[in-house]
Amino acid sequence: MSDFTHFNDQGRAKMVDITQKPETSRSAIAQSSILLNEEIYTKITNNEMKKGDVLAVAQVAGIMAAKQTSTLIPMCHPIPISGIDISFDWIKTEQSYKLSISSTVKTKGSTGVEMEALTAASVCALTVYDMCKAVDKGMIIGPTFLKEKKGGKNGDFSRQDEPV
Amino acid sequence: MSDFTHFNDQGRAKMVDITQKPETSRSAIAQSSILLNEEIYTKITNNEMKKGDVLAVAQVAGIMAAKQTSTLIPMCHPIPISGIDISFDWIKTEQSYKLSISSTVKTKGSTGVEMEALTAASVCALTVYDMCKAVDKGMIIGPTFLKEKKGGKNGDFSRQDEPV
Amino acid sequence: MSDFTHFNDQGRAKMVDITQKPETSRSAIAQSSILLNEEIYTKITNNEMKKGDVLAVAQVAGIMAAKQTSTLIPMCHPIPISGIDISFDWIKTEQSYKLSISSTVKTKGSTGVEMEALTAASVCALTVYDMCKAVDKGMIIGPTFLKEKKGGKNGDFSRQDEPV
Amino acid sequence: MSDFTHFNDQGRAKMVDITQKPETSRSAIAQSSILLNEEIYTKITNNEMKKGDVLAVAQVAGIMAAKQTSTLIPMCHPIPISGIDISFDWIKTEQSYKLSISSTVKTKGSTGVEMEALTAASVCALTVYDMCKAVDKGMIIGPTFLKEKKGGKNGDFSRQDEPV
Amino acid sequence: MSDFTHFNDQGRAKMVDITQKPETSRSAIAQSSILLNEEIYTKITNNEMKKGDVLAVAQVAGIMAAKQTSTLIPMCHPIPISGIDISFDWIKTEQSYKLSISSTVKTKGSTGVEMEALTAASVCALTVYDMCKAVDKGMIIGPTFLKEKKGGKNGDFSRQDEPV
Amino acid sequence: MSDFTHFNDQGRAKMVDITQKPETSRSAIAQSSILLNEEIYTKITNNEMKKGDVLAVAQVAGIMAAKQTSTLIPMCHPIPISGIDISFDWIKTEQSYKLSISSTVKTKGSTGVEMEALTAASVCALTVYDMCKAVDKGMIIGPTFLKEKKGGKNGDFSRQDEPV
Repeated sequence: MSDFTHFNDQGRAKMVDITQKPETSRSAIAQSSILLNEEIYTKITNNEMKKGDVLAVAQVAGIMAAKQTSTLIPMCHPIPISGIDISFDWIKTEQSYKLSISSTVKTKGSTGVEMEALTAASVCALTVYDMCKAVDKGMIIGPTFLKEKKGGKNGDFSRQDEPV
Repeated sequence: MSDFTHFNDQGRAKMVDITQKPETSRSAIAQSSILLNEEIYTKITNNEMKKGDVLAVAQVAGIMAAKQTSTLIPMCHPIPISGIDISFDWIKTEQSYKLSISSTVKTKGSTGVEMEALTAASVCALTVYDMCKAVDKGMIIGPTFLKEKKGGKNGDFSRQDEPV
Repeated sequence: MSDFTHFNDQGRAKMVDITQKPETSRSAIAQSSILLNEEIYTKITNNEMKKGDVLAVAQVAGIMAAKQTSTLIPMCHPIPISGIDISFDWIKTEQSYKLSISSTVKTKGSTGVEMEALTAASVCALTVYDMCKAVDKGMIIGPTFLKEKKGGKNGDFSRQDEPV
Repeated sequence: MSDFTHFNDQGRAKMVDITQKPETSRSAIAQSSILLNEEIYTKITNNEMKKGDVLAVAQVAGIMAAKQTSTLIPMCHPIPISGIDISFDWIKTEQSYKLSISSTVKTKGSTGVEMEALTAASVCALTVYDMCKAVDKGMIIGPTFLKEKKGGKNGDFSRQDEPV
Repeated sequence: MSDFTHFNDQGRAKMVDITQKPETSRSAIAQSSILLNEEIYTKITNNEMKKGDVLAVAQVAGIMAAKQTSTLIPMCHPIPISGIDISFDWIKTEQSYKLSISSTVKTKGSTGVEMEALTAASVCALTVYDMCKAVDKGMIIGPTFLKEKKGGKNGDFSRQDEPV
Repeated sequence: MSDFTHFNDQGRAKMVDITQKPETSRSAIAQSSILLNEEIYTKITNNEMKKGDVLAVAQVAGIMAAKQTSTLIPMCHPIPISGIDISFDWIKTEQSYKLSISSTVKTKGSTGVEMEALTAASVCALTVYDMCKAVDKGMIIGPTFLKEKKGGKNGDFSRQDEPV
């Protein structure tokens, strides 16, 4: 059983010391999604927007946000991200359309990139919300979760089920 | 029916012109949550962490992130936020514990603060994940959604149901 | 004849005081360009890249950079930008292709947005360079200049000629 | 007797709501200092460095830091700074030289700029330290304090004594 | 006798080249403090604030600021910080209370982390000021100084006396 | 013939994976310039401004901007810059004065620093424009281009001609 690692002797938060951890190749995959109505789905996938579509902007936002992760998450170590890729899938549900967002982040560093992948997926979804909220403010973001993590001494992680 | 407002004549994204919109009082409430196991719940609420608890760090992160919203979301206007408040509630579910996060953002500006509230709630949840991931990486963030929006010419918004 | 306005009594730089200047509507248009070869031109305008083209990324970068202007330019006042639009034109020159970049920035503020427009155009051009440099590093950015400025007590500015 | 204003009903920190406060002209003056040895004093004031002196860099750093105040200080409101000026004075002490730093910040806003002035002076001093630490790491920064504050409903503030 | 290392052939500032310096383990400890009155002391240490105390917010601010050091200090190299810890001590003086702040920063890098430790301590103190200034604006920050530095070819540094 | 490397399987932009690329010493030199009139030239080089000249501020801005390159350019990898130097030259043209700006950036990393050098030169030029625009808004920035690049598996690059 692991202890919380972000607290010092005074019971206050600290950024844990990873100075002695070796630099190894690591990767993480996070997923998020955004549930939206047919009108938004049609507009996003509409041919008239082919040159500057919502997803292109959202994906740039996700990639840029991944690079800001240690600025946003207080106890997160700054890590030199070596690669980011974000992809989309449309899933038709009974009454709505769900845009599934998958972000993969890689590094060669002393700690993992789970937070970078989760941040990329989250900000990507927030950007879709921002660009479509003039049509409908009822969109729902998430669930957002870690799908896979590789590398590092604590072993790999892989989520089998799909949270609803 | 509203059109997408973030595209210019070339079909590319732009930041819409709000120069002529008057500055009025506006507020927005967003909600997110994070589903976590009993061990994490116990540790977070444990008395031994009373001086520097996870929620205190997460809430600072959420407030600071709200101020970075226009840096993170490409087409989002910079707005002088005049107030932010984040509160927490614990909800016991059948097999897990859910930490509910509610963020309220206020401004006196030319456009709404929905994105600021959603960003605050999202980064707050991400920070909880970061500080507890040494115990379990299976936590699930969200759904994240807009609960209420007041002010502005497009009318108020209030979500009645609670997304699961 | 105007004096340099950014220096204090000790001869050092300062951010000039605009507290008493009224907030008025202002706009500025800046232009930049990037000269590139036929191979890059063909690839950028190639249909296979229609979903995530170079220009879409560059334009998002330009818009986001405009919001960082006062962070980048030391004596520049923070201004609440109310609108940004970036458009592109292809100009065929004798032996190369020139991508012309035009950025329009608007605000309702106490000082102009010339720097915001120039910064948006510059970073937009830099992003095109970054995304195409694997093909050829000989691309040339600029000239970059102010095309037009409206609003403010010092009168409007409009450049008639086109710098080569 | 004023209460702490940065805590919500759950006893957690919040950014206090200033939506209803009117925008008025405000200013604040903060002071800091850095105590350094004769060698550093001589080098800083040496003619050979006239084109790029330590103080010029430190002063740019202080001005830029003032614009980042609400990014650095969690509960600090983002304020559109309308002017910043930093000046220096050398004070010869018995065995050392003290560089006195005074920063004046102005705004037309809903809350004061004390934190902006204090941040500018602090980062200005830190930059002097950084640029001279190859000579001696024993420099001492501060005391750093608010000298004067004008504007706002809570009245003006003026410090009479000089902390040592 | 060391020369100033931050100037180029034109006498202007530069960021010194550390490309050839090996990456080694380094650490630095900085100290700051804030002098405040009994009312503030009582409120900070009051049980009613146990869930979101001033020190928890200040400490998060200090940690996050350490990660922004190279953004704030012009000639400071970006360094991948591998650990940060901030601790507090209360020192009762004759007529006031002094909160002593100690920040320890670690890295495995090509240059030291003195500036990161000093920045963390400074912003931590500024945040305490911000959160308590509604009670009294007469608080005094500092002296702020380097306590200890380990690692790197220039040898270790350790301050024996305590500046007042 | 190289392909564009910034696109994923869905035709969208990504940050290319450089995890397996070795860290080697790299450098890049970029050039920019700003064309300005005699009045501005005289004022910049005037003795009365010797303590806080325009070029000192511009050069600090360029150095600080180089460190923000990966924040500004969406697909640019974060790189630990190990050295930056910016130098100036005045070139008298027939009817104007041209300030030539040369920036050299070094790193020990997995990818090149061309973008960092180009960004430093661009922001340096933008800052000169900002500080002199009260005198004349007709200044022209650029051409901005890569002069030289060393290190990395793709070979060195050196531009022979001087774009006008």
